[in-house]
Amino acid sequence: MKVYLDNAATTPVAPEVFEAMVPYLKNEFGNPSSTHSFGRQAKGTIETSRRKVAGLIKAKPSEIIFTSGGTEADNMAFSVAINELGVKRIITSEIEHHAVIHTAEDVCKKNDLEFALVKLLPNGHVDLEDLEELLAKSDKKTLVSLMHGNNEIGNLLPLQKVSEMCRKHKAYFHSDTVQTMAHYSFDLSALDIDFITGAAHKFHGPKGVGFLYINNNIKGLPFIHGGSQERGLRGGTENLYGIVGLAKAMEIAYEDLEAHQNHVQGLKSHMIEELRKNIEDVSFHGDITPENSLYTVVNVCLPKTSKSAMLLFTLDLKGVACSGGSACTSGSAKGSHVLEGIQADTTRPNVRFSFSRYTTKEEVDYAVGVLKEAFEKELVD
Amino acid sequence: MKVYLDNAATTPVAPEVFEAMVPYLKNEFGNPSSTHSFGRQAKGTIETSRRKVAGLIKAKPSEIIFTSGGTEADNMAFSVAINELGVKRIITSEIEHHAVIHTAEDVCKKNDLEFALVKLLPNGHVDLEDLEELLAKSDKKTLVSLMHGNNEIGNLLPLQKVSEMCRKHKAYFHSDTVQTMAHYSFDLSALDIDFITGAAHKFHGPKGVGFLYINNNIKGLPFIHGGSQERGLRGGTENLYGIVGLAKAMEIAYEDLEAHQNHVQGLKSHMIEELRKNIEDVSFHGDITPENSLYTVVNVCLPKTSKSAMLLFTLDLKGVACSGGSACTSGSAKGSHVLEGIQADTTRPNVRFSFSRYTTKEEVDYAVGVLKEAFEKELVD
Ligand SMILES: Cc1ncc(COP(=O)(O)O)c(C=O)c1O
Ligand SMILES: Cc1ncc(COP(=O)(O)O)c(C=O)c1O
Repeated sequence: MKVYLDNAATTPVAPEVFEAMVPYLKNEFGNPSSTHSFGRQAKGTIETSRRKVAGLIKAKPSEIIFTSGGTEADNMAFSVAINELGVKRIITSEIEHHAVIHTAEDVCKKNDLEFALVKLLPNGHVDLEDLEELLAKSDKKTLVSLMHGNNEIGNLLPLQKVSEMCRKHKAYFHSDTVQTMAHYSFDLSALDIDFITGAAHKFHGPKGVGFLYINNNIKGLPFIHGGSQERGLRGGTENLYGIVGLAKAMEIAYEDLEAHQNHVQGLKSHMIEELRKNIEDVSFHGDITPENSLYTVVNVCLPKTSKSAMLLFTLDLKGVACSGGSACTSGSAKGSHVLEGIQADTTRPNVRFSFSRYTTKEEVDYAVGVLKEAFEKELVD
Repeated sequence: MKVYLDNAATTPVAPEVFEAMVPYLKNEFGNPSSTHSFGRQAKGTIETSRRKVAGLIKAKPSEIIFTSGGTEADNMAFSVAINELGVKRIITSEIEHHAVIHTAEDVCKKNDLEFALVKLLPNGHVDLEDLEELLAKSDKKTLVSLMHGNNEIGNLLPLQKVSEMCRKHKAYFHSDTVQTMAHYSFDLSALDIDFITGAAHKFHGPKGVGFLYINNNIKGLPFIHGGSQERGLRGGTENLYGIVGLAKAMEIAYEDLEAHQNHVQGLKSHMIEELRKNIEDVSFHGDITPENSLYTVVNVCLPKTSKSAMLLFTLDLKGVACSGGSACTSGSAKGSHVLEGIQADTTRPNVRFSFSRYTTKEEVDYAVGVLKEAFEKELVD
């Protein structure tokens, strides 16, 4: 049996998404910048996709900039904040994705900006009091970058609250929403935020395409120089099929959002319950209450064993795909900076399971069974 | 009849390329950074593609960095040259693609580098004597960026000669090879160059994917920050299907390169001949001798007419897709900077036709017929 429980790393392309992409991989191949009929058709397709994406999160079409993925979108947000908005200070957290934390570190060093890390609470949430203090402490133009849903421990940030805090202190606000886009609803006509990001492959769309939402009040200088595509922010011939796939994936995700949420939250709760029943001394990283946590992710802290290096190997051998630490980092032999950031016990084996709307209860039960057996047989000290 | 003669802007995906991509859009969807079987398979696919691409141009696999396209690859080359190699001067030309010229201008301004433009000869070629003088004139660490095949007028740069000149003066050398990759053979074990670039959609591969070749002697700092994908130069989940498509497209292009070259050069020569026969006072921009010119591109200078604004419209209406100026620039109402750069008569209508291995003689004849008729009927003053 093959059980894929690593949907926070990437998801399979939905069949409807594949079908939507095919015509653009076959016949409708024009360059959207060409003025002839092939080009106009391609241009129309991209603008239709942009309107669709914007509509689904109540943004304006001109606020959606298509990119090559979540990482590029995060990088672009920092580029705009610094080169265009003249930001002089960045506040972020230790448990951001590398696409944010490495970018923040780099741009602060290169541009001699102030770099501040907000404190975290023991349950992994951002300490909002500390954030308020940091914001109040300085008059420098500030960008706050805090992720919406943490890809390793699942903790959710109260976006509305943080947005209000940022506005009060005239700070710009970027949130990496790669794990929540198309998994939670967004209303950007009501939420006052400057930048959010999405990556299609996290919601059953294709890899290699994502987007940055930039609040319409912000004009941007190029992040990638070339032609004047994507409001001049990103030169280069557009990834036509990718953009079509992204829009389609978002559309079908939002069509049945509540049903998906209920189904997947059910699986997560079930897995937590079964693990508690079947494995002694098991616990969970971060805040696992449904209101404050991604319904798609659970990060399990397992009993100490001298054979913990064998655990992922054993799971893999039995066909269970899941992740130790973040799977988004290539060749990550290093430990998880997120688990370190929340001072988790990293001497124990920690495993992230992540679900999608295609995941079944049988698959979850199989994974729990494999874990149980492992701790009863393979991993006994 | 629909006749697509704008292959320098973009090309249709080859059916074999589409077929090669399908499995990765359907079942083999792992994140190459994941350590489980899904991830390892994806990783293996990417490394196989990298070896294939490298092998075809006699580079080492570690010298190939996959990107989201030609523009990003050009931008990345400048980033490495400046942040890593400490380049203090850039020499380029007026007729480079915007992905190069805009990037060069921007990085020079931002980093306070010297910016120099090499002179051009009347036929559009780079004045190599002027280049030698420029190189000799300064001791500053220099990057020379000169394109291999010009996307508008087709002129070819003698890569070997310029490479030797750069080496003699200890300058780094970047060449935008977007129009020549998979259309000409490359032997990077013999050609001493630091950076070249490719974009799959220019050779019947998918849009949204390209690559940068970086000479192995050069280590790079991140251009896009995030995970450690692509030698740490480019964070972000890889465009798996795109990379598979790029490698397949390159492979089949090089399988029958000579036959394609002969076929397409034949079409170009035929078109030149037919235009001369059928349209009075026609001429051609740049150097059109086969040794010095892209076999895929011809840029036609047509007779003056007060109705020249109608020309592309007329061609489009009759189903002929071609380009005025560069088609790579979004919404390019502006004139061509390349034609201006070579001081062409831009008061005349100028049209670029560009061919592919799928183009037929009948299509070329149809386009010539449409042009002839236009100048006899629609466009008469
Ligand atoms: C010479 C040249 N360089 C760079 C590019 C940019 O490639 P892409 O649009 O794939 O980013 C193009 C075409 O668009 C080109 O013709
Ligand atoms: C929270 C978060 N941000 C950003 C990214 C980067 O997205 P991508 O790999 O598509 O560039 C990921 C996943 O890889 C993620 O989980």
